[in-house]
Amino acid sequence: MSETKILLSEREIPRYWYNIVADMPNKPLPPLHPATGEPLTADALAPLFPSGLIEQEMSQERWIEIPPEVRDIYALWRPTPLFRAHRLEKLLDTPARIYYKYEGVSPAGSHKPNTAVPQAWYNLQDGVKRITTETGAGQWGSALSFACELFGIQCEVYMVRTSYNQKPYRKLMMNTWNAQVYPSPSERTEAGRKILAENPDSPGSLGIAISEAVEMAAKHEDVRYSLGSVLNHVLLHQTVIGQEALVQMEMAGHFPDIVIGPFGGGSNFAGLAFPFLKHHLEGKQTLRAIAAEPAACPKLSRGVFRYDFGDTVGMTPLLPMYTLGHDFIPPAIHAGGLRYHGAGVVVSQLLKDKLIEAQAVDQVESFEAGVSFARTEGIIPAPEANHGIAVAVREALRAREEGTAKTILMNLSGHGNFDMASYEAYFQGGLERFELSQEEINQAVARINTPEIPQ
Amino acid sequence: MSETKILLSEREIPRYWYNIVADMPNKPLPPLHPATGEPLTADALAPLFPSGLIEQEMSQERWIEIPPEVRDIYALWRPTPLFRAHRLEKLLDTPARIYYKYEGVSPAGSHKPNTAVPQAWYNLQDGVKRITTETGAGQWGSALSFACELFGIQCEVYMVRTSYNQKPYRKLMMNTWNAQVYPSPSERTEAGRKILAENPDSPGSLGIAISEAVEMAAKHEDVRYSLGSVLNHVLLHQTVIGQEALVQMEMAGHFPDIVIGPFGGGSNFAGLAFPFLKHHLEGKQTLRAIAAEPAACPKLSRGVFRYDFGDTVGMTPLLPMYTLGHDFIPPAIHAGGLRYHGAGVVVSQLLKDKLIEAQAVDQVESFEAGVSFARTEGIIPAPEANHGIAVAVREALRAREEGTAKTILMNLSGHGNFDMASYEAYFQGGLERFELSQEEINQAVARINTPEIPQ
Repeated sequence: MSETKILLSEREIPRYWYNIVADMPNKPLPPLHPATGEPLTADALAPLFPSGLIEQEMSQERWIEIPPEVRDIYALWRPTPLFRAHRLEKLLDTPARIYYKYEGVSPAGSHKPNTAVPQAWYNLQDGVKRITTETGAGQWGSALSFACELFGIQCEVYMVRTSYNQKPYRKLMMNTWNAQVYPSPSERTEAGRKILAENPDSPGSLGIAISEAVEMAAKHEDVRYSLGSVLNHVLLHQTVIGQEALVQMEMAGHFPDIVIGPFGGGSNFAGLAFPFLKHHLEGKQTLRAIAAEPAACPKLSRGVFRYDFGDTVGMTPLLPMYTLGHDFIPPAIHAGGLRYHGAGVVVSQLLKDKLIEAQAVDQVESFEAGVSFARTEGIIPAPEANHGIAVAVREALRAREEGTAKTILMNLSGHGNFDMASYEAYFQGGLERFELSQEEINQAVARINTPEIPQ
Repeated sequence: MSETKILLSEREIPRYWYNIVADMPNKPLPPLHPATGEPLTADALAPLFPSGLIEQEMSQERWIEIPPEVRDIYALWRPTPLFRAHRLEKLLDTPARIYYKYEGVSPAGSHKPNTAVPQAWYNLQDGVKRITTETGAGQWGSALSFACELFGIQCEVYMVRTSYNQKPYRKLMMNTWNAQVYPSPSERTEAGRKILAENPDSPGSLGIAISEAVEMAAKHEDVRYSLGSVLNHVLLHQTVIGQEALVQMEMAGHFPDIVIGPFGGGSNFAGLAFPFLKHHLEGKQTLRAIAAEPAACPKLSRGVFRYDFGDTVGMTPLLPMYTLGHDFIPPAIHAGGLRYHGAGVVVSQLLKDKLIEAQAVDQVESFEAGVSFARTEGIIPAPEANHGIAVAVREALRAREEGTAKTILMNLSGHGNFDMASYEAYFQGGLERFELSQEEINQAVARINTPEIPQ
């Protein structure tokens, strides 16, 4: 048996983030100001984000230097290991080589700290004392709590009330890193008080939690807001994953034929895929990059490409994205991190230009794949990560049919230690598949009343 | 800042386990057969353990080869990283260098798979189809479930009923690895049925669960029993930790002045300390090896050295050990893995000969240290691991007082992802210190009626 895993030393942590915008044949369209309909300026973002991140959000530079203080903290878990899934290959009886990049070794247990740490650092440079954010399942809130604590910034997390009640361990993890966690809707904001006045028992939603976090940042001079996916600067930070994997795959002696990442807002997928896609765009290597999205929220494979809001309430700039509509509420799958109505701007343009692909996976198939993975490779994956595994399994079985020794690389974005209740539901046969009918998709898309993309 | 972590490639996974018995100035006394009082023979162990493990249990050989199949599986997480705790040092303002070996990167999240995997493998060699064991908090049951699944052996876990009810996620983790988990007492065994007949609502205990697991193994030809600590072969398997750390500390340019491990039955402490102690025994280097035990169960620092049973009921061979008495029931601290009345035979002899030390830590001090660790180094440690951190903090503060740049190395044996409820109790001020009075210790020791150690 060849090597099981390939490690890099911490001297090999990337020194630059890779900005794929520089290499895109068609640049992304500009976000629009929601009131004026005009292309967004940096000024409009200043109440919410620190200057360093706004600059990155709009940058066309190919390489952006990673601050040494951020690399020092990355060294707590980076470079992450790359594994060859020998035992899963054997189970599938496939000639394909399956590799996985494992991001669950971070203290917060997922890839999210890759962007939480630089976001906290750029806020620190602007003298920000407190950062607000929202969290659903809790993975992003955990990552930002961890990052803020290392820089002595107070972190304030609005956690959807149902999650707050159902997932006390996630909340405790954030508390351990000194964050303040509030069930949302809360009495702390106008948005929260308004909802509670109408419905004191409101279970909350990600949309409400975003409204509370954004309001708190907009109203206070030394408070800023932070988002865990979708935006350009977030995708940018995650490219450390793919840059490391590129070196590791070279050491393994293979350039992947297929790269796969689970898809919520795009940062997980982009983080692994973009550095490989660079070689594809330059014509050096060919590659299929596949986004693995949930069948319950298939914006890439079944949504429309048009301007839409990033949040449910409609407060954010209008983004040119694949979307199911900003008020689309996906069925309650366990992969909470993938329940987002739209796709990041850069990823959307790449899909429009057919430079990447998407496959939708229902949650029963995703858990079947995840359990096969756990029983062969050991690690119990997060429900989000199971979607990527499921697509890898599909492609490995196709390789068996075709008799081709394809090389498949996937992003195993996090462990499932805080998600065991979802495995219980699966073992008890209590998971629904949640395939959306064409009727449901049509209805969702028909409700969208935001501007069309100019042809 | 110098390097944060030191990694080894998987070629550097140790090829041999280190048996410290070969180098001990005074060999451990033999275990005695409980019925005859005579030294135990291999035959007496055959109904419970496979031949390969019985041989190791009695071996005096210094190096025992690790089977290649076991090393292949070790490669899923080994070699584990060695970290320099730069940020914790800064918080403590100490001239000491603090290093930690992190075993939480294994799929089960602790050091336990280091012995679970070879135990499963040696059972496979003897054609064993099913392995039984007990688990309290669930860490050992998880590790053995994972190991058995990789070799296609059925794993049957008797989980103390209160834990079974309070920790459903641990049970689900075992189920995910295909294990059968039964709340103990169960209707499956005579021992269980007897207890349930007397008390249908019995909360169970580790003693009862051991009785059920041992009975199941003793009664079936193709079933064997497995133990996660205390025994010589278990300590032996864990020496992969210290062997790797020895190479990593050489790369760091320091031989530790102090090596620290949390102490339950001894395998965690021994695994890290024994390879370093070898150099000490050979007179090459001096070293203080400190076992960090809970103040609620201080068998090393306050117990007596004499023959005692390994289990609560009194079914096992008599072992020459430091003990508080086999019927001693420690207060219900959250570090369930450290609530064991006795210490492994080899460790006990080393303490008797003053070649190692012990320090008792109450659980409030242990959680204070663990939270400081999480807020500087990121990882949230298991409650067991917090005891080792607390002793490291004590020694680092002493180094500050003395103004000496001591090098401290500790075994961070596992993460606390499944133990967040204990952090909640700590944050809410609900943790008791559980210092035992001299009166309580005297009473416990006075109850022991097993043979004294011959002088």
